[in-house]
Amino acid sequence: MPRTWGGRGLSLRGWANRAAREYPARLAMTVFAAVITVIWLLLLTPWATASGRGASVVDALFTATSAVCVTGLVVQDTATYWSEFGHVVILVGIKVGGLGVMTLASLLGLAVSRRLGLTQKLLTASETKTERLGEVGALLRTIIITATSIELCISLLLFPRFLALGDQAGTAAWHALFYGVSSFNNAGFVPTEHGLLPFASDWFVLVPIALGVFIGSLGFPVILNVLTNRRRHKHWVRALSLHTKLTVTTSLALLVGGAILIGAMEWTNPATFGGQGFATKILSSIFASVMPRSGGFSSVPVDEMSQETWLVTDALMFVGGGSASTAGGIKVTTFAVMLLAILAEARGDADTEVFGRRIPRDTLRLSIAVVFMGATAVLVSCLALLRLTDLRLSEALFEVISAYATVGLSTGITATLPDGAKYVLCALMFVGRVGVISLLGALALRDRRRIVRFPEERPIIG
Amino acid sequence: MPRTWGGRGLSLRGWANRAAREYPARLAMTVFAAVITVIWLLLLTPWATASGRGASVVDALFTATSAVCVTGLVVQDTATYWSEFGHVVILVGIKVGGLGVMTLASLLGLAVSRRLGLTQKLLTASETKTERLGEVGALLRTIIITATSIELCISLLLFPRFLALGDQAGTAAWHALFYGVSSFNNAGFVPTEHGLLPFASDWFVLVPIALGVFIGSLGFPVILNVLTNRRRHKHWVRALSLHTKLTVTTSLALLVGGAILIGAMEWTNPATFGGQGFATKILSSIFASVMPRSGGFSSVPVDEMSQETWLVTDALMFVGGGSASTAGGIKVTTFAVMLLAILAEARGDADTEVFGRRIPRDTLRLSIAVVFMGATAVLVSCLALLRLTDLRLSEALFEVISAYATVGLSTGITATLPDGAKYVLCALMFVGRVGVISLLGALALRDRRRIVRFPEERPIIG
Ligand SMILES: [K+]
Ligand SMILES: [K+]
Repeated sequence: MPRTWGGRGLSLRGWANRAAREYPARLAMTVFAAVITVIWLLLLTPWATASGRGASVVDALFTATSAVCVTGLVVQDTATYWSEFGHVVILVGIKVGGLGVMTLASLLGLAVSRRLGLTQKLLTASETKTERLGEVGALLRTIIITATSIELCISLLLFPRFLALGDQAGTAAWHALFYGVSSFNNAGFVPTEHGLLPFASDWFVLVPIALGVFIGSLGFPVILNVLTNRRRHKHWVRALSLHTKLTVTTSLALLVGGAILIGAMEWTNPATFGGQGFATKILSSIFASVMPRSGGFSSVPVDEMSQETWLVTDALMFVGGGSASTAGGIKVTTFAVMLLAILAEARGDADTEVFGRRIPRDTLRLSIAVVFMGATAVLVSCLALLRLTDLRLSEALFEVISAYATVGLSTGITATLPDGAKYVLCALMFVGRVGVISLLGALALRDRRRIVRFPEERPIIG
Repeated sequence: MPRTWGGRGLSLRGWANRAAREYPARLAMTVFAAVITVIWLLLLTPWATASGRGASVVDALFTATSAVCVTGLVVQDTATYWSEFGHVVILVGIKVGGLGVMTLASLLGLAVSRRLGLTQKLLTASETKTERLGEVGALLRTIIITATSIELCISLLLFPRFLALGDQAGTAAWHALFYGVSSFNNAGFVPTEHGLLPFASDWFVLVPIALGVFIGSLGFPVILNVLTNRRRHKHWVRALSLHTKLTVTTSLALLVGGAILIGAMEWTNPATFGGQGFATKILSSIFASVMPRSGGFSSVPVDEMSQETWLVTDALMFVGGGSASTAGGIKVTTFAVMLLAILAEARGDADTEVFGRRIPRDTLRLSIAVVFMGATAVLVSCLALLRLTDLRLSEALFEVISAYATVGLSTGITATLPDGAKYVLCALMFVGRVGVISLLGALALRDRRRIVRFPEERPIIG
């Protein structure tokens, strides 16, 4: 087996490597469009729906896009509308989409870093030479094995609980597997009716799922960096890469800050946290703060939350998760780099520094591009949604940011949208998922330098 | 006279110069707080109100802050609630506030540029040595004379029209003067009942006011650069500074883009443009697109516009006008620099270039700081408003951005706000007006350099 893989891998590796290096944007878009099309066609078959009558073209497309882009927005209730075959198709879409994101992002990382002459650095973003992952084949294998292992761990934590709650062994195993894959891939799809609402006070269900979402949202480079460092370094925490340290600390800070804000605002809301006990309120706050990054599960009804909570969730969703993860948004490192630049500006430091490292200046321009294009996509889609529907801004904005950042939380309006609005959200999910990967690949590879430089002149800012 | 001025000016100049150099944030905040307090106390007197019963503490504070910060949000109808004395107080507040912004911004510019060893450059942001304005006294005089001249021109354009419409000579002159000052200072206060709604199709009223707002929103460095260049250069357009070119082109682009978008969205709305003739619709579109930058007048009822128009207006208001102008927002150059950086990134250029000039890299970090702090101020205030009222997000966001960017447009909710929300908006107007000036001053003066540099390490972005 290894030999066959190695043999086929050589040419596959060569092709993937060349494609990633020469037309990364087209590669990412083609792969995702192709996978979405296959899932779409499968979901259009009559066997995919529970009723056997077949889904509408737009509903099948929306569900396929939502699954492959690991978003989790649904126009039809996953548990009741789709058949068992439909559920398997959706789960395959999630698994392939999740792997696609992690793989393509890492591949592009490799291609970019190689071109910049930093071959080993990008994946680990570290100057230590401990992680050599030069080969595409090895990278793919590592991602598949690591991801699947973590998914299985989550599933194994959930399985006994579902059994204890009275499920049949087969059903319990299927639900545990589905939630394991759906959580680690930050997909947000739920195989059970009413999603996680019946489990709102069940620590044994919510904690594994929150853990899966959080670990998945850190991104593959972080997971790999932690795993290899633990094995190879005595002081493994200190030896972690800057990227890992930034991602983990920012994610934790946003988690705690979000939980405090959301908890404070929903504490006495009778429709959400109000009727819960103290411990459950804490659990609900943490769960509601993890999910915008970008798991998309909810343990209390989002539509009953206050507009303030929606706004805080909007902000958390827009920031999203870690780079090269299945999470969406502008990514926590982008957010962190901008914050650090502002701090350095306020202190009057010439360099932007953190954890004893200096952040390269060109990183900032890339951050601005990512944030600006994200904000533009959200604004334009929001205008389109307001134009096509009678929604209020708070609902439209929430839905749009959720689609862009592939979160999947919703105020409950998705199913009621007209077809035009569904297509807008499909496009936005695709852009949010594939756009940023393509963008980064395309940007990093077109590195033309000028010989003649213009004289410098400073406009007034602010 | 010149001698006396020169004699007193020496010490005044010395003090202003030193204050601006050594504690610019405190200087700006103190000046504004002091002026607001005086106007507030004057508005609290019974003579300031038409009824003679005196305004409430919070209403007087809100109106004083709105006038001095040249915002134009009102909790009481300006024309009917305040007396003639009240109107004069408000107009003085506008004039002093407007001059304060232009002067302080320019002073800080001088102090900063002197410190950076670019003395003559900042005001004109040009490498030509034609504009020497080293002296604070001369600068102040130039600003006062230029501003007052432009205001009088606008007033002279309006006066015959108001006469023709049947006003008494005294009333016509007063209204013309008020609109002249209010428009050039981007104040948005209206001395006539129902504001400009009765003039919705009157080109002779709306065009001078739009012109005053537009010129005022360009900022003093731009106006001065144009005026002096016209006198001194043969090819004066080409010789304009980068700052001037960037400000004018971005302002015009936003004006045209905004007019097309708003026009398209309101074209058939019976409550706004729907009932107007073709030419008036064009006028209304242009007027509605100039006003977010940040005049704050409206020729059609804002509360009847669609949510989409509100959202486009939100975006235009947030961008605001030119640096060192009476306009608010993040400023058009900040916006332009970020756009140019993204374009350069997309092209793979190492330098960010425009109009044959290279934009310094540290400009970008400053831009991020300005945008990020603006967005944070808006987000936090929006949360507060949603918490304190039953407003919808679309209304709260519009009101908050209008206050932050000192625009003064409103969906009509200002007067109905509870006192707590009024105080939040007061604070936001102050921050939007003084915060950015102080921020820039404070930032630019703390320029500590490190001798030990940390090693560089690149996190993954996006
Ligand atoms: K999701
Ligand atoms: K204004």
